Amino acid sequence: MSENSKTLRFGILGCANIARKVARAIALAPNATLCAIASRSREKAEKFAAENGFPATVRVYGSYDQVLEDPCVDAVYLPLPTSLHVRWAVMAASKKKHVLVEKPVALDVAELDRILDAVESNGVQFMDGSMWLHHPRTAHIQRLFSVPHSASSVGPVRFIHSTSTMPATPEFLESDIRVKPELDGLGALGDLAWYCIGASLWAKGYQLPTSVTALPDSTRNDSGVIVSITASLLWDQPNQTFATIHCSFLSHTSMDLAICGSNGSLHLRDFIIPYGETSASFDLTLGAKFVDLHIGWNVRPEEVHVANELPQEALMVQEFSRLVAGIRDCGSKPSTKWPEISRKTQLVVDAVIKSLELGCKPVCL
Amino acid sequence: MSENSKTLRFGILGCANIARKVARAIALAPNATLCAIASRSREKAEKFAAENGFPATVRVYGSYDQVLEDPCVDAVYLPLPTSLHVRWAVMAASKKKHVLVEKPVALDVAELDRILDAVESNGVQFMDGSMWLHHPRTAHIQRLFSVPHSASSVGPVRFIHSTSTMPATPEFLESDIRVKPELDGLGALGDLAWYCIGASLWAKGYQLPTSVTALPDSTRNDSGVIVSITASLLWDQPNQTFATIHCSFLSHTSMDLAICGSNGSLHLRDFIIPYGETSASFDLTLGAKFVDLHIGWNVRPEEVHVANELPQEALMVQEFSRLVAGIRDCGSKPSTKWPEISRKTQLVVDAVIKSLELGCKPVCL
Repeated sequence: MSENSKTLRFGILGCANIARKVARAIALAPNATLCAIASRSREKAEKFAAENGFPATVRVYGSYDQVLEDPCVDAVYLPLPTSLHVRWAVMAASKKKHVLVEKPVALDVAELDRILDAVESNGVQFMDGSMWLHHPRTAHIQRLFSVPHSASSVGPVRFIHSTSTMPATPEFLESDIRVKPELDGLGALGDLAWYCIGASLWAKGYQLPTSVTALPDSTRNDSGVIVSITASLLWDQPNQTFATIHCSFLSHTSMDLAICGSNGSLHLRDFIIPYGETSASFDLTLGAKFVDLHIGWNVRPEEVHVANELPQEALMVQEFSRLVAGIRDCGSKPSTKWPEISRKTQLVVDAVIKSLELGCKPVCL
Repeated sequence: MSENSKTLRFGILGCANIARKVARAIALAPNATLCAIASRSREKAEKFAAENGFPATVRVYGSYDQVLEDPCVDAVYLPLPTSLHVRWAVMAASKKKHVLVEKPVALDVAELDRILDAVESNGVQFMDGSMWLHHPRTAHIQRLFSVPHSASSVGPVRFIHSTSTMPATPEFLESDIRVKPELDGLGALGDLAWYCIGASLWAKGYQLPTSVTALPDSTRNDSGVIVSITASLLWDQPNQTFATIHCSFLSHTSMDLAICGSNGSLHLRDFIIPYGETSASFDLTLGAKFVDLHIGWNVRPEEVHVANELPQEALMVQEFSRLVAGIRDCGSKPSTKWPEISRKTQLVVDAVIKSLELGCKPVCL
C-alpha cells in the first residue's frame, strides 16, 4: 500500500478564517494532505493559498464544483456559512466525497437530516468540526465518569455549567457572517452554544435531555439574530441532572466547563480552545468536605495536565482520516458515532429555538 | 475608656454546630468577648461550654430569656432554626441587645421586616451571618468592578454564575433541621442559595434584579422542603446582566463563583468558605483574546492571593462590634448597610419561591 493510498486528500470549499486553522491541521495530521482549495473567485483562492503558504501541489479553484469534480479529492472540509452547508454537503456526498462540516452543521434538524441521508446513502464519512472532542483531555476526563461509584470517580453527574463568550466589536455585531440572518441565522446559538450543548450531552454520555428551556435573557441584534443566550437542559432519568449554558458575543472571552457529580467536580476554563497547543489541564476535586468547625476544606483542587503531541484540530483530522481509511481500505462502514453526536446537538439547538418561540417554556425532547 | 467598654459582650442563643464556629470567632475578634451561652436545657448548654473550652467567665443559662435579661450582655448571636429568628431577634432588640442573626434571616420578607422594625425602633445594630462578605478577598475583588472601563477592570458585569452544593447523607435529608418544614422551611434555598443570591447582588452593587425565575429542576424531600434549586436573576439596566445560581444538598461540595464582565472574568471555587484560614485566592483574566489562528489564548488566568490575619467570621464579629462601639461610644446611628443587604437577599429568596409557585414563571421585583 503506497503512502498515497493511506493519506486522505482534502479539498476545502471556502476561504473563511477557520479554514486557515483546519488547513494547518490537515498539514499536521500524519494521514491527511491538502490537495485543493476553492473560493467563489479564483483570485481569492489564489490569494488565500499564497498567504497561507500552501505548497504548489495544492490545486486552486474558482468554484466549489471544481473541487467536487476533482477525482483526486477524497474528502472536503466545509467552512462555509451555515445556510450553505446543506447544499454543499449533500452535493459533496453525492460525488462520494467524505465531509467534514464546520459547526453549527445546519439551521435545523430537517436540514441536518438531508445531509445525514446523503452521506449514508453514498457511504461516506461525516463529522462536524467540534475540535475539543478530539483533545486527549476530553477522553481523560470521560474516564472519570465511567466508574459511577468509586473514590476516584466524580460519580453520577448532577450539574453541568458551561459558557462560550467573546467580546464582539460593534463591527462584528453589525456585519459578521455569524450574525447575518441569511448566512448564520442561529447567531450565538449556533456559533457558541453548539459547544456548550455538545459538552452537556457529552457529560451525560449523549443521553438526550428530557426538556430544554431558554432563559429570559436572550438578546438579538437589529436583524433579529441571537447575540446572547442562556438555556437549561434537564435530564430526569436515571439520576436528575441539570445543565445551564450561557453563550454571548457581548462578554469577555470565556470557555468555562464545570461538572459536578455526587462525589467530585471538574473545572475547565478553556474547554473549547485550550490555552496552549501542547498540553491542557483541568482541575479535579474529589471527596471534598469541610474540616471541623467548617473553617476550611479537607482537599484543594488538583490540577491535572494532559499532554498532546498534535493540536486538537489535527487530531480531529487524523481521526476523520482514519475512519475514511477504514472505509476505503478495509471495507468498514462509516462510523455513526459522529453523525449521531451532531444530530443530538442539533436537536437541542432546535429545542432552544422552540422554547424561545414559546416565551421560554420548557420543550420536551 | 476601659477595655471592657470597648469590648462587645456576646451572648449566644442556642448550641447549633455553627455556634461553635462563631464562638471561636468571638474569641478571636479583638473587640468582642463571649459572656453567655444558653440552650433550652442548662445541661445541654453546660456540655456545649465544656466541649468548646469556654472560660469560666462565660455564664451558662438554661433558657434564652435569661441571656436577654442579663445586663452584661450587649449583643446576641442567633444560630437558631430560621423559624425561631423573628421571635428571638425581636425580643432581643426590645431588650436593647444588638443582634447578629445566622442566615437565612427569615422565612419571608414580612418576618424580616418585623425584625428590622424592632432593631430600628430600639436603635440596635443588625447583621446577618454572611461571613464571606467580610473576607478581604471580597473587598479586593469589588475594586475590580469599581472602575467600569479600564484595562485593569472586569468592566460592566454581564454574567454571574454561582453554586453552593454539598452531598447530604440520607440521614440529613430525612431529619436535619435544615430540611424540616417547621424549622428551616426554605431548605436549600435558605441554607445555600442565601449565599449565591447574596453574591449576585454584591456583584451588581446591590441593585435589585428586574426579574427572578426559578428553573425547572427544583427537588423537594418527602416533607416538601427544597433540597435542590436552580434560579436565574435578570437585570435590565443599565447594562443587561444575567445570573444563574445552583444550590443543592444532592451534589459534591462546591462553592463556585464566576463573574464575567465586558473586559475580564473572575473565578472563585471557595467563595463561601475559603480553602484555608490565612489567605484566599481568586483567578483573574483580563483582556483575553485568541492568538492568530485561534490555536491558544494571549493570556492565562492570574491567581491573585489575598492574605487575612483573622478568619472571615472573626472579621465579621469585629465589624459588627466596631459598629456597636460606634453606637455606644460615639452616638452613631446603627449602620443601615447590613440590614439593607439582608433585606434585598430576602426579597430575591421570596421571588424564587413565588416563581416556583407560578410554575417557574419570571417574577418582577
